Amino acid sequence: MFNFTLHLPTKILFGKGQIAEIKNQIPAGAKILMTYGGGSIKRNGVYDQVLDVLKGFEIVEFSGIEPNPQFSTLMKAVELGRREKVDFLLAVGGGSVLDGTKFIASAINFQGNEWEIVKSHGTVIKSALPIGAILTLPATGSEMNGNAVVSRKETQDKLGFFSPFVKPQFSVLDPTTTFSLPPRQTANGVVDAFVHTFEQYMTYPVDAKVQDRFAEGVFLTLIEEGPKALAEPENYDVRANIMWAATIALNGILGIGVPQDWASHGIGHELTAQYGLDHGQTLAIVVPAIMWHQREFKKEKLVQFAQRVWGYQGNDREQAIRVAIDKTRAFFEQMGTPTRLSAYGIDDSQFPSVLSKLKEHKTENLGEHKNIDIKAAEEILRLAL
Amino acid sequence: MFNFTLHLPTKILFGKGQIAEIKNQIPAGAKILMTYGGGSIKRNGVYDQVLDVLKGFEIVEFSGIEPNPQFSTLMKAVELGRREKVDFLLAVGGGSVLDGTKFIASAINFQGNEWEIVKSHGTVIKSALPIGAILTLPATGSEMNGNAVVSRKETQDKLGFFSPFVKPQFSVLDPTTTFSLPPRQTANGVVDAFVHTFEQYMTYPVDAKVQDRFAEGVFLTLIEEGPKALAEPENYDVRANIMWAATIALNGILGIGVPQDWASHGIGHELTAQYGLDHGQTLAIVVPAIMWHQREFKKEKLVQFAQRVWGYQGNDREQAIRVAIDKTRAFFEQMGTPTRLSAYGIDDSQFPSVLSKLKEHKTENLGEHKNIDIKAAEEILRLAL
Repeated sequence: MFNFTLHLPTKILFGKGQIAEIKNQIPAGAKILMTYGGGSIKRNGVYDQVLDVLKGFEIVEFSGIEPNPQFSTLMKAVELGRREKVDFLLAVGGGSVLDGTKFIASAINFQGNEWEIVKSHGTVIKSALPIGAILTLPATGSEMNGNAVVSRKETQDKLGFFSPFVKPQFSVLDPTTTFSLPPRQTANGVVDAFVHTFEQYMTYPVDAKVQDRFAEGVFLTLIEEGPKALAEPENYDVRANIMWAATIALNGILGIGVPQDWASHGIGHELTAQYGLDHGQTLAIVVPAIMWHQREFKKEKLVQFAQRVWGYQGNDREQAIRVAIDKTRAFFEQMGTPTRLSAYGIDDSQFPSVLSKLKEHKTENLGEHKNIDIKAAEEILRLAL
Repeated sequence: MFNFTLHLPTKILFGKGQIAEIKNQIPAGAKILMTYGGGSIKRNGVYDQVLDVLKGFEIVEFSGIEPNPQFSTLMKAVELGRREKVDFLLAVGGGSVLDGTKFIASAINFQGNEWEIVKSHGTVIKSALPIGAILTLPATGSEMNGNAVVSRKETQDKLGFFSPFVKPQFSVLDPTTTFSLPPRQTANGVVDAFVHTFEQYMTYPVDAKVQDRFAEGVFLTLIEEGPKALAEPENYDVRANIMWAATIALNGILGIGVPQDWASHGIGHELTAQYGLDHGQTLAIVVPAIMWHQREFKKEKLVQFAQRVWGYQGNDREQAIRVAIDKTRAFFEQMGTPTRLSAYGIDDSQFPSVLSKLKEHKTENLGEHKNIDIKAAEEILRLAL
């Protein structure tokens, strides 16, 4: 096991009715910038609940944070926050709203060009306004970590940053807020959480037994509950298990002390930037291709994954690896998320552009062995056609 | 799944060499009360490491915190801390040193009779001095939670308290500090961590899939690594896996959103108070007896435990339950911890005294169903003879 530091300061308030608790978590007298997306929180009642609970607080609203939140949109919120002199940010929505709010929180008092926050991957952040979150889409894990991803359409950039200063102070996870999610968003969320787990697990063994067992537990939970969430969208326990699994998948617990991959995310971000694919879709496309391309480097974990997660009981290593890949692909497809570029009508004509962006973002040596260079990335993209 | 709140503010610094990091974690200029036990930290080099790292800090030492820390001992540290006006506590040792330090931290500025801190189970605590910890014995999980147990010999009391104010600000977990542990302490620690997991798992199902899988992961890790730690005490990965498993076993991650038992701890504490048995020994004695006595109430989880942890593949429920109990007992015995009172030379002559203390401590309705009354507790003790 590698050395690690783990710090999880975010307080989690989990369960039906927990939105009522936020009035006790936000400092009295705070002026709140409430951020949200396209209005689904108005349709599902969350918006009304929040305003009702926060009576007595001064609230400024900023809506319209889009999926893959755009720098230009977020800068409008930054200007609003500066003008209104807000001192607490309340993000209500999914990963995009949370990620965008992390950017806003670090940018409001930032001295300098705000794009540096993203471009430096967060290293320039020295402080941020406090953030609280009400999660309505389990997927990214943003509710309990310091990660965010921000996009810039005009330059086709989609980049991640991290800072301990943007970890939410609290996050409310009420599974009933997810009952009304469209199937595609439910599926994307399950695939995203699955692949977060995968990025921290499917590398090479370092004898980190708790982390391995925990990752396998998250895989098994998502495999059991994902299809049920599509079939029974208002099953509370199913939604609760998915919501908690998605948070755990990227709060740090799975990734401490072990090697991490993140090549699927690196390549996937470029596919979203180039083609506008959903984040979950890009992962479903890239992961099976990477599993096959990197099978020699990941063989021990592929076999363990086949055995412990997919129930493979034979003793043929090649067969186990095929089981691991085929079952993973079948699971994504079962969730309604196609796993080949061709299923989205994409051919290889724009690969040169995707690959040059990978190079520009200095992500040309991806994976736990840093062995996925531009040539390997192209091979992976061709395997995903 | 039940609603829950989870807050894990303690920063974990895990791995070889991490003691050096504490100088960056303790506020500059702090006057430190360093607490420890009987001197094992002087023999294994940890004491010298700490003093070396903290050159420049003003340090007051308090040694002699015993296993099952005594109120009278701790009050001497409280008086020292008051006299010296310390403002940071650094606990260096195992669960007893950490628990004792939590009492000291909350008592130094406490107005009133300090025994109330324990007797109220912590509810009277409104503030505490900040605590950092260097753990040298994985077992109690005290390094990442707000729990502590304090004893009072003259009244044969052993009581737990909890407060969010005594959660350590940081804890260093360096597995090399555990290489020199005597086998009995290694075994007690593994049994303790196993039973912490058990108390949060072996109840009734509430469809909390992540929590169940995580608990099973901790069981499997301890079962695989415990005997290895006895055979290869300086195997780093084995010690690291046990150390992390023991922290995870009681930091809250396993117990959120699920029913909890704690009857084994309730009865076990009285056995320590009455007979002076090690905490781990009392758990090894009580757990198999409770499993059998409560088998009807715990049947679903006993079967799941037999299948997922002990590899039972049949479909006979009674047989599965027997497998669960027999394998658990065998594991404790394999760790060198006898599972019957008679093995420690104890008969039933002092049972009336144990039972009257249970009653006095208002712990006469134990278990997740509150159905273990004094009569049931006596039956359990007799099963453990």
